[in-house]
Amino acid sequence: MNYLIVIEFLAVIVSAIYGVLLAARKGMDVMGVFTISFAVAFGGGTLRDLFLDRTPLFWIGNPHYPMIVLGIAVFSGLLVRHVGKIRPLLVIPDALGMALFTLTGTAYAMDAGTGFFVAALLGVITGTFGGVLGDVICNEVPSLFTPSPLNATCSFAGAWVYLGMAQLDMLEPFALISGIVVIVLFRLASVRWNWCFPAVREPKLPSGP
Amino acid sequence: MNYLIVIEFLAVIVSAIYGVLLAARKGMDVMGVFTISFAVAFGGGTLRDLFLDRTPLFWIGNPHYPMIVLGIAVFSGLLVRHVGKIRPLLVIPDALGMALFTLTGTAYAMDAGTGFFVAALLGVITGTFGGVLGDVICNEVPSLFTPSPLNATCSFAGAWVYLGMAQLDMLEPFALISGIVVIVLFRLASVRWNWCFPAVREPKLPSGP
Amino acid sequence: MNYLIVIEFLAVIVSAIYGVLLAARKGMDVMGVFTISFAVAFGGGTLRDLFLDRTPLFWIGNPHYPMIVLGIAVFSGLLVRHVGKIRPLLVIPDALGMALFTLTGTAYAMDAGTGFFVAALLGVITGTFGGVLGDVICNEVPSLFTPSPLNATCSFAGAWVYLGMAQLDMLEPFALISGIVVIVLFRLASVRWNWCFPAVREPKLPSGP
Repeated sequence: MNYLIVIEFLAVIVSAIYGVLLAARKGMDVMGVFTISFAVAFGGGTLRDLFLDRTPLFWIGNPHYPMIVLGIAVFSGLLVRHVGKIRPLLVIPDALGMALFTLTGTAYAMDAGTGFFVAALLGVITGTFGGVLGDVICNEVPSLFTPSPLNATCSFAGAWVYLGMAQLDMLEPFALISGIVVIVLFRLASVRWNWCFPAVREPKLPSGP
Repeated sequence: MNYLIVIEFLAVIVSAIYGVLLAARKGMDVMGVFTISFAVAFGGGTLRDLFLDRTPLFWIGNPHYPMIVLGIAVFSGLLVRHVGKIRPLLVIPDALGMALFTLTGTAYAMDAGTGFFVAALLGVITGTFGGVLGDVICNEVPSLFTPSPLNATCSFAGAWVYLGMAQLDMLEPFALISGIVVIVLFRLASVRWNWCFPAVREPKLPSGP
Repeated sequence: MNYLIVIEFLAVIVSAIYGVLLAARKGMDVMGVFTISFAVAFGGGTLRDLFLDRTPLFWIGNPHYPMIVLGIAVFSGLLVRHVGKIRPLLVIPDALGMALFTLTGTAYAMDAGTGFFVAALLGVITGTFGGVLGDVICNEVPSLFTPSPLNATCSFAGAWVYLGMAQLDMLEPFALISGIVVIVLFRLASVRWNWCFPAVREPKLPSGP
């Protein structure tokens, strides 16, 4: 389980940075920046722990996690000052946070004895819920729910890569890293070439309101 | 408890179909359709299980539930193509899903040893939260919270019908079906004749901002 | 723990009244008023109990709480009729509800064995989440997340005052009341003199989209 602790730690840091940049775009104050970083960094994992009945919650059991997020939010002024230069790289903490949290969700669900499909679903929920929460707090329609570059699909694919490799008795760290790499590359490619699913639409009928 | 498993199973299917039709109206892609179906079908029951501390969550303990919802979402293209014809019937899966979930919430709460009033409340929460979540994800003001045809009130009334009949030592399936029928008919009548509560308004004062 | 039960009871009543006034401003019907009162009065404490794995939830274990909230909602017509006169006092139930719930969250977290920082965070979550939920249901951007008079900051400060005094072996009720007084006065002063944090903004760059 050591690998998962390292992955979760990285996921918290990367997601908190993404949260700061999201909040700064909206002109929030320091408390708002902390709240959004907190929500993005801990939202998915909290849902995962509640759904799997894991206690204590990972950020209650690891009290240095919220302190690190507070530190990132306090120094966000510095971070944001340089964001003009690093904005083209912004998609990377987003993709990486989703990838890392997806793998923790999938692996913890398997530990809790779920089947493959539910484990992959919990991976997707853990990987995407933080971002959805951040969008909701910023009062935007979450990009997860509109035709936009593939998001949950990348997360789902990476969860299955990990599950498949773990099933084939690959070494745990190798399976975890493969899942992460697949999610990050798939997500970056989706954003770069704007891969979307077609929308499911009702046919336009003259009689419909 | 056998009856409740059948009722829950039907509630999941009916709610997933309602979720698909809700998502299609918004022009979502396949992943969005699945997400909304998932939220509508599992939102209320998840809150019920978390509030009553039931583990595992019903869709983790019954892993075929999310698979069925995935199947419904994948074939939603077919479903939606015919929705123009069946739209007048749309209010039925909505009312039926609410009714079925309300009864599972009330019955499970009584099993957990709550009093009547809290059991009825948990029924209403279980019956209505999926629809609220669907509306929130679609970025609409949930119809539950605006003056619109009675909704939570129907759910509350049906929960009390079930509780009363169970108290009178009626057979369980008879009490359950009575509650469901009351909710569905009450809800359909509310929509048909547009029954609303009056709004509680502040009096207009010249001095107030 | 007796003090906390009294504080929680007062917090529920004060928050329900605040919820009624919030709902009336939006012209909701009786069911909407009850829903918002319920969400404001029980939202924060429910999250606290879920996060700390306390069972049963405080409003399931104290079934008179939701009955009291129902009573307040039913008589809200009377309450609202006089609100024009008492509106200048409206900020008081808001501040008091936040203060009382913050202290229950902090104290229960310490009971559950968390550290100081996590206890203060749980106090803030318990104190502010009800108000956020009320704003979200009313479809407003929660004031917690925009530059507006200090809110979570007051809650956080009061939690630390309580923790500090409890650490210095002050009598429990004295420490609790000190925390409450600090939060209420700090919040009222913030609203009165419009104390805000400055917004964290990205620098305007000619090249940025």
